[in-house]
Amino acid sequence: MVRNYKLTLAYDGTEFAGWQVQPQHSTIQGALADAIARITGERLLPQGSGRTDAGVHALAQVASFAIESPIPAENLLVALNHTLPASIRAIRIEEAAPDFHARHSAKAKSYEYRIFRASICPPFVARYVHHHPFPLDEDAMLRAACFVIGKHDFTSFAAVDPERGKDGEEPDNMRTIYSSEWQREGDLLIYRVRGNGFLHHMVRNLVGTFLLVGKASIKPDCIPALLAARSRSETGPTAPASGLFLASVEY
Amino acid sequence: MVRNYKLTLAYDGTEFAGWQVQPQHSTIQGALADAIARITGERLLPQGSGRTDAGVHALAQVASFAIESPIPAENLLVALNHTLPASIRAIRIEEAAPDFHARHSAKAKSYEYRIFRASICPPFVARYVHHHPFPLDEDAMLRAACFVIGKHDFTSFAAVDPERGKDGEEPDNMRTIYSSEWQREGDLLIYRVRGNGFLHHMVRNLVGTFLLVGKASIKPDCIPALLAARSRSETGPTAPASGLFLASVEY
Repeated sequence: MVRNYKLTLAYDGTEFAGWQVQPQHSTIQGALADAIARITGERLLPQGSGRTDAGVHALAQVASFAIESPIPAENLLVALNHTLPASIRAIRIEEAAPDFHARHSAKAKSYEYRIFRASICPPFVARYVHHHPFPLDEDAMLRAACFVIGKHDFTSFAAVDPERGKDGEEPDNMRTIYSSEWQREGDLLIYRVRGNGFLHHMVRNLVGTFLLVGKASIKPDCIPALLAARSRSETGPTAPASGLFLASVEY
Repeated sequence: MVRNYKLTLAYDGTEFAGWQVQPQHSTIQGALADAIARITGERLLPQGSGRTDAGVHALAQVASFAIESPIPAENLLVALNHTLPASIRAIRIEEAAPDFHARHSAKAKSYEYRIFRASICPPFVARYVHHHPFPLDEDAMLRAACFVIGKHDFTSFAAVDPERGKDGEEPDNMRTIYSSEWQREGDLLIYRVRGNGFLHHMVRNLVGTFLLVGKASIKPDCIPALLAARSRSETGPTAPASGLFLASVEY
């Protein structure tokens, strides 16, 4: 009998080349596939809710996979944490409906982007933040963040991917953002965003653009025009991967 | 004119072969010497308050060094943090008396040892703790810790060093411990110890022995006899480096 599982993972992405398996590179998906194979003898490719890029972390990424092994779920969780490197932890596992798919079944996702504001960044924090100790108008950044709430074409904030749209079809870059805000927690300035889906580099490009707002290079109320332009060249640089966390996936 | 400096450093020791310079290895002392040379053109060996071993961290290690460069202290601090890797931070610098020496002038030191008790250790914490999710009698560990307070010969808790005492002289292993206790902070069980000095591996060997007490392999009131035995072979294994932090040095 084949059982389908929903697995929730946390990982420190610093030393991985991202989620997706790649030859010659250490990846989260690859490490998870290896661990499942070591435990069950079954070689398969677990599906993630989406790819995270090299250096991006996860508080709660979700993966799905189907195995024949009769190992009870709670034992599989323990075995995964014995087998995976300490930088990847299996934090929850549950049997899922046969048609559950971590990516196709996802209804919403939340990300966090952490900026460390104090002048000296403790070495125990440096891997998990973007250190930006220079002046920022944080109120302006919060005002700018509000403008992306709702249903928009996010082409201006998507990585320019030479492979997409090659067949002549326009990619569908419409996404709905349910919440988008900056919050201060001590020395951390955290961007939290929740939406029905995100384009490649979208959160980091939004953050890079909000940083331009914080530096007064652009005004908060320019965001609607940047969205309307549907051009990546108008928006800010991609913020560093180290500050980004996939926070949760909803089904 | 030569100025003598007292520099306070924090570091994540995970990827270093300890404090002391070694050929072919990345060390804290070596990285600091390289940074000072890059900034001032002066090649010297900064002195630490003591060596930390491979993988051991510091919240506030102290180093001393004398340079001729007239660079103001606050600029030197900024330049060091521009030059050092993010895993080492210069957190304070001050000009010191010409005879100040980070090791010889030290009056007391404090260490922390962090044990993570929950069943799953978050990947963002794993580098900075010893993960021990199994049952421990934490009250017994606290009772055991009290027995090392005071002036004792700590030979039983010192690394057996084949180089020491080679000249026929007995090494002086008397040290005075001012405080020694275990504290619970959420999922962390933290050993905090303050003394006038510590032998090589002494804190990790004390923790390894307190862990034997926690597992009921030995009783808390065996500690005085273990001290009196002056034999490393009677005490517990050296606890892993990842949990240990040099917390402060007093002058």
